[in-house]
Amino acid sequence: MSGPIRQGHWHKSRRSILRIGAAMAGGAVLGPAAGAAEMENSPPGEPDWTKAIGAGVVDRPYGRPAEFEKDVIRRNVPWLTATPESSVSFTPLQSLDGIITPNGLFFERYHAGRADVDPHQHRLLIHGLVERPLVLTMDDIMRFPSVSRIHFIECPANGGMEWREAQLNSLQFTHGMLSCAEWTGVKLSTLLDEVGLKKEAKWVMVEGADAARMNRSLPLEKCLDDCLVVYGQNGEALRPEQGYPLRLLVPGWEGNVSVKWLRRIKIGDEPWFSREETSKYTELMPDGKARGFTWVNEAKSVITSPCPEKPVAAPGLYEVRGLAWSGHGKVKAVDVSFDGGVNWHSAQLQEPILSKALTRFTIPWRWDGQPALLESRVVDETGYVQPTIAELRKVRGKNPIYHNNSIQTWQIKPDGKVFDVQLG
Amino acid sequence: MSGPIRQGHWHKSRRSILRIGAAMAGGAVLGPAAGAAEMENSPPGEPDWTKAIGAGVVDRPYGRPAEFEKDVIRRNVPWLTATPESSVSFTPLQSLDGIITPNGLFFERYHAGRADVDPHQHRLLIHGLVERPLVLTMDDIMRFPSVSRIHFIECPANGGMEWREAQLNSLQFTHGMLSCAEWTGVKLSTLLDEVGLKKEAKWVMVEGADAARMNRSLPLEKCLDDCLVVYGQNGEALRPEQGYPLRLLVPGWEGNVSVKWLRRIKIGDEPWFSREETSKYTELMPDGKARGFTWVNEAKSVITSPCPEKPVAAPGLYEVRGLAWSGHGKVKAVDVSFDGGVNWHSAQLQEPILSKALTRFTIPWRWDGQPALLESRVVDETGYVQPTIAELRKVRGKNPIYHNNSIQTWQIKPDGKVFDVQLG
Repeated sequence: MSGPIRQGHWHKSRRSILRIGAAMAGGAVLGPAAGAAEMENSPPGEPDWTKAIGAGVVDRPYGRPAEFEKDVIRRNVPWLTATPESSVSFTPLQSLDGIITPNGLFFERYHAGRADVDPHQHRLLIHGLVERPLVLTMDDIMRFPSVSRIHFIECPANGGMEWREAQLNSLQFTHGMLSCAEWTGVKLSTLLDEVGLKKEAKWVMVEGADAARMNRSLPLEKCLDDCLVVYGQNGEALRPEQGYPLRLLVPGWEGNVSVKWLRRIKIGDEPWFSREETSKYTELMPDGKARGFTWVNEAKSVITSPCPEKPVAAPGLYEVRGLAWSGHGKVKAVDVSFDGGVNWHSAQLQEPILSKALTRFTIPWRWDGQPALLESRVVDETGYVQPTIAELRKVRGKNPIYHNNSIQTWQIKPDGKVFDVQLG
Repeated sequence: MSGPIRQGHWHKSRRSILRIGAAMAGGAVLGPAAGAAEMENSPPGEPDWTKAIGAGVVDRPYGRPAEFEKDVIRRNVPWLTATPESSVSFTPLQSLDGIITPNGLFFERYHAGRADVDPHQHRLLIHGLVERPLVLTMDDIMRFPSVSRIHFIECPANGGMEWREAQLNSLQFTHGMLSCAEWTGVKLSTLLDEVGLKKEAKWVMVEGADAARMNRSLPLEKCLDDCLVVYGQNGEALRPEQGYPLRLLVPGWEGNVSVKWLRRIKIGDEPWFSREETSKYTELMPDGKARGFTWVNEAKSVITSPCPEKPVAAPGLYEVRGLAWSGHGKVKAVDVSFDGGVNWHSAQLQEPILSKALTRFTIPWRWDGQPALLESRVVDETGYVQPTIAELRKVRGKNPIYHNNSIQTWQIKPDGKVFDVQLG
């Protein structure tokens, strides 16, 4: 029988775990049946690193991953855009654990390449419908009251290549325009209070210092709610790929509004309808009209193990792992199906469950070697339930690129390989 | 008057903030008095990065910090140990925000240098007073139920160079044997359940695969409580400096027991009294006896801004920031003094407040340019209050190296420079 096993059952399945060891370890490994004497003082073998003194401290003043992890990298899809300077790279979610994305693997999205900004020259102008327009240096900004918060950023095009059909067969490429970090900066509301908003103020334009001068309009209400102007990412300074030395962070909203290399904030009374909110980041609906200002990333989830890059080794007991998130707040529950959505089982959520942050879920699964269809479905704290791709298409058709938050189906074949499929 | 200002007062001090801008920005910066027309479309200047397209995606498949951050690195104190292979490097806390330490800056402590271990060859042996001794591969270990948790690691020698007197004048060197990450792995209790403990089992020996074969004895109770066998650090694989591919994590206890490159776990009925728990990691008390097995890092805190590496620019309004932590659980409160411990004021704690993790605190401070003595004092959820160095010396004398969790005093001089001092 292929299916879930009860939470807590793991510890009662000792013989199954031993089979895991036997199934996965190569011939060089002593199994549990090996003589105790042979294992008295050390595991089998005496590798080199137990015999010679290694490198000293600050051999690498700033560290880097082990050489054996050299395939854990960001990747792009060359056919996706005309040039790499206006493109995206994807986070290797198939190789990551927990909820923090290391800075070196945070996904990239550029409209005119990566701006390499000198923080000493960088300035932030805040002007428009304000009492006291202001130009701030980085030192000025860092003196304001600071906050640190863990939030995801997801490009609304994440999954966009599969609005019409499944074609990628890769977790990295279906879901990797998604990362999560601890951000540190100033509340945008603090800066807006500083310049003093005029009573007509209703909209905010944010602009980057890259060659695209990437800009977007945001309603004032969101800016005063939870937006941050951030300079810190997972403890250290922002990475250049993420807008060093300063970016906007709009928690839970589509990534492009979190403008990088932030150099200007203008206050107005109506949206600007900039290039990026007219020619792009809108969705052509079946009736010929376009949805615009579709900012919120609705609740979404995906199973990260197994996945196409991480096949199932052999029949036996596994922990299915995944990520869930919602642009509206906290994840409330995740259900997992092993039969393509016929039956659903509650997954366990990993603490801490933070608002507009990635949340890990896990569920044990005994695979019997038969074909299976694995899916996850999140419910967020507003009660919103993640839809199927068929449900999304019924409303929005097949034209859109953005905001595909549908349930992902992974097909498990008898040889353990995993495929990206769409049902019905 | 030099002293704290009420929480929430910041927003009412607009003119003070404008003075911040005037005081800190160089002559090139337009102040708030600049004409609005001049600032209509962009901040002053048109730097190069707004004119030319930058590098494309995956220019760096694995990213690195901005060139301008090249001084944010781990550093060592050359006179501290005879060789860099048995030494420590310090995290640059003066440059970090939030609670996550980026993996590249996590402090190092080696007993025989950094072991560069091949994960395909690595094995974990679990034996001794167990029903079924077992050898596990990394693949085996990753199949067990996983958990991710944010915890600090602190070397008990952190602050050890100042048991006798203040001599370092550096936050990095007084407190930088301290880092915090999101760890992912298997509960040690899960593995011990797998091998089956015999009823005489009381102690656990853990051993690394480095040339020191670093080993320590741990009471079984702690192992069954919250210890983890981890392979993930801030989302990605452990760094070699942190024990790649596998380390023990003993939350809240002195760093050296979180044995790196973990290759062996032996169950016994008494401690092993290994080299590292007899010749080292004990404390010579005034009566000539030694304290041993002093595992827990008691509650501690430190102000990270200002600090010797981050002086105060000029009189005005600041946010004082710092870190607090406890090996016994959660931080309950942090008080800050601006006058060397005469008066104390409640700091604000940043969410999330997690058990045995770093916690950020902040408090506003208006500096009037007069000498000041800044201190922070943490209280943890057990009610334990961080002591002064004088209180610690009264009990333990001046011989110890380890477990100096005393209150740090930063002296602010009229020119804004900050010095590491000890009072009374």
